[in-house]
Amino acid sequence: MAIGIGLLGLGTVGAGVAAILASPEGRHPLVGQLALRRVAVRDPGRARAVSLDPTLLVTDPHLVVDDPAVDIVVEVMGGLEPARSLILQAIAAGKSVVTANKAVIARYGEEIAAAAAARGVYVLIEAAVGGGIPIIEPLKQSLGGNRILRVSGIVNGTTNYILSRMAAEGAAYADVLADAQRLGYAEADPAADVQGGDAADKIAILAGLAYGGSIERSAIPTEGIDRLEARDVTYANQLGYVVKLLAVAERFEASASPDAPPAPVPASNDVALDVRVHPTLLPRSHPLAGVDGVNNAILVEGEPVGQVMFFGPGAGAGPTASAVVADILNIAGISQLGAPAGALDPLLAASRWRQCALVDSARTRHRNYVRLLTRDEAGVIGKIGTAFGTAGVSIQSIVQYEASGSASSSGAGSGAEIVVITHEVEESRFRQALAAITALPEVQTVAACLRTL
Amino acid sequence: MAIGIGLLGLGTVGAGVAAILASPEGRHPLVGQLALRRVAVRDPGRARAVSLDPTLLVTDPHLVVDDPAVDIVVEVMGGLEPARSLILQAIAAGKSVVTANKAVIARYGEEIAAAAAARGVYVLIEAAVGGGIPIIEPLKQSLGGNRILRVSGIVNGTTNYILSRMAAEGAAYADVLADAQRLGYAEADPAADVQGGDAADKIAILAGLAYGGSIERSAIPTEGIDRLEARDVTYANQLGYVVKLLAVAERFEASASPDAPPAPVPASNDVALDVRVHPTLLPRSHPLAGVDGVNNAILVEGEPVGQVMFFGPGAGAGPTASAVVADILNIAGISQLGAPAGALDPLLAASRWRQCALVDSARTRHRNYVRLLTRDEAGVIGKIGTAFGTAGVSIQSIVQYEASGSASSSGAGSGAEIVVITHEVEESRFRQALAAITALPEVQTVAACLRTL
Repeated sequence: MAIGIGLLGLGTVGAGVAAILASPEGRHPLVGQLALRRVAVRDPGRARAVSLDPTLLVTDPHLVVDDPAVDIVVEVMGGLEPARSLILQAIAAGKSVVTANKAVIARYGEEIAAAAAARGVYVLIEAAVGGGIPIIEPLKQSLGGNRILRVSGIVNGTTNYILSRMAAEGAAYADVLADAQRLGYAEADPAADVQGGDAADKIAILAGLAYGGSIERSAIPTEGIDRLEARDVTYANQLGYVVKLLAVAERFEASASPDAPPAPVPASNDVALDVRVHPTLLPRSHPLAGVDGVNNAILVEGEPVGQVMFFGPGAGAGPTASAVVADILNIAGISQLGAPAGALDPLLAASRWRQCALVDSARTRHRNYVRLLTRDEAGVIGKIGTAFGTAGVSIQSIVQYEASGSASSSGAGSGAEIVVITHEVEESRFRQALAAITALPEVQTVAACLRTL
Repeated sequence: MAIGIGLLGLGTVGAGVAAILASPEGRHPLVGQLALRRVAVRDPGRARAVSLDPTLLVTDPHLVVDDPAVDIVVEVMGGLEPARSLILQAIAAGKSVVTANKAVIARYGEEIAAAAAARGVYVLIEAAVGGGIPIIEPLKQSLGGNRILRVSGIVNGTTNYILSRMAAEGAAYADVLADAQRLGYAEADPAADVQGGDAADKIAILAGLAYGGSIERSAIPTEGIDRLEARDVTYANQLGYVVKLLAVAERFEASASPDAPPAPVPASNDVALDVRVHPTLLPRSHPLAGVDGVNNAILVEGEPVGQVMFFGPGAGAGPTASAVVADILNIAGISQLGAPAGALDPLLAASRWRQCALVDSARTRHRNYVRLLTRDEAGVIGKIGTAFGTAGVSIQSIVQYEASGSASSSGAGSGAEIVVITHEVEESRFRQALAAITALPEVQTVAACLRTL
């Protein structure tokens, strides 16, 4: 019995999906049971990478959503509207939906999930995070026995490509970005990538699944790589670190202290989370440190599984189409069970089961990398060290770099550059210390401040 | 509605599973619906890591399998029998089975799968490969849209621990093995690990799922690390490689040639596979090269997904219990659909859908690392190079090492050691070349011969 597929969009990803459906040989036999019934495109006359029966093409997406021969609606048009409305309309028509649209899911995921649960259909989103990497379904279907402690990932290929080249070549951000745009690795308007918004969308989605509760997307502290200087990538490298744009969601333990043993997991189902996106110094031995170029990787830490990592191509027509088809197959597979209409598998449906609150970032604890521009005078390191110590901030290392002659873009002039890496400290205390240090007459400015694992 | 769980075995993994079931807070709410109903143990009086109601314990495993209150039977006793018979008995009783028993599945997987399909129940095996790493279900549920080109993995933690230490310390195999046994990373009888049998079990299982056909376990060419010499690990390192015990299953293309473009994927569903286990030189940039210690990783290459990798702890009570509980949750989740008895989701059931034939290894193509002990005479490298060339074997590098004074365990004496790395060549042609080279009067012996990626 064929399962009717309707496509909203026939861009890169849509054409990749159509190509898989058109060549089922050698793939799982269920692919052969998927029948492409209708495709909404903006311009039916446009030349396409995949050849389709032209009678399948329509310009009105409602004709796809409303077609009784379409069992599963695949939304790969992107953008917030009309994508959101069409997804809701498909759900209302009793159809399961597959979407690669992280922006819609990160913003309207609750509304969409509630509508799907009420109507008894699935909305699957494997392609929304990590391109072809199986990460959404493993989180839902393979790690449910765990208490998730942390999800951290390199989830934006554009910024990882830029950072990899900055590290390898010592190149400046703006130069690499321009080159990435020429090569098609970065959009003409790169804001969503380089300012961290895309990564924040994705960590909102991952955290929602990992912790079973809704994440307030707009409350996620987000810092991109657009103000990162080449010298900080270089200094980090000299100190044994690589700089990556990390998206992190970790369980917040109020009692955490560097010396105390890990706090026991609270029995209550509600959970406080520290969710954020920022450039991060990773020790070179960290599992995510070796993930270079446009690849993505997501590290999941749980009790009792320990650390598991998922690695692969974070974007591209083929990988993303692979993830979209995986979702279609999951819905098609379960549809063969002949279960009563509206009955849902709770793992695949991924309904929310607790409250997730984002903690005030002032209360979170992190290690920090700070680069200070100072006067080139004897005793400066001592004064900075003392100021951190007085504020109760423990320091791992202080290193002075020769800044004279190598005018930094921050205008170091002929002063000194001092790089401090702290031990773990509460953010509020660190900020207090930084204010005290900025007030020292020898300190000209805080040129960079990055989180460190 | 509670779902009754019966455990066969309460060793490390069984106790880990019981511990998760006994503390559902903070895990997926479906865990709270699992009720441990009966546990078969050898000695009910033994002290255990997990405290259980003693009335749950029985010594006769048939009481678990036959208990009408048990819906899902979890086999974590290990060994071939009575594990195989109990799994079949549970299936006959209409119960789904979760097992971590790679030896049983690699040998009797077809018999068990046929029985499960006939009875309309699931046999899930996530814990059988890769410990806590989600790999079995992603292969079944997330990559079905792909044509799988290659599955390669580090799937045995014991040998990877030994190889990691040999590489880091330049230590001899026997010394590291003895140390690993003291530390509990290797069994008193390490044969199944160090001779590659465990890895062969696992690649048989992975290949069966990736390619959708049964793999003849006993036909897999298997070479362990038990004859690997420290100097080959060292030389490999100097040449830019690391040595790993790889388990590989790749689609065999008869027309493959190093110069020809990749052959098109045949339209027929049947597939010829090159499946093998052997110590392998990996370029340091290979995604699997950085996987050290007792970790496991599996790299899946498919069209159109490209390369995706799954990394994590390959063994241990917690990780393995995480995988077992994942399987239980998948069965429990689908059971909530109220589908007619006997109906199966084809993805979760993973029924076979084509024939897989293992190709004659003489026809397979690989790169090779060869270490030759030779007389220390001028012109030897030239003669060896010429002999390879005459046989049509293209060479990437020939390096002569100083063997005099550093008597190798192969009895190099005061001769020379010559290490050759070939380009890709058909195995039969390579063996012919090696025979011709061994016949050279200057060549004393082939001291080592390893595959190279």
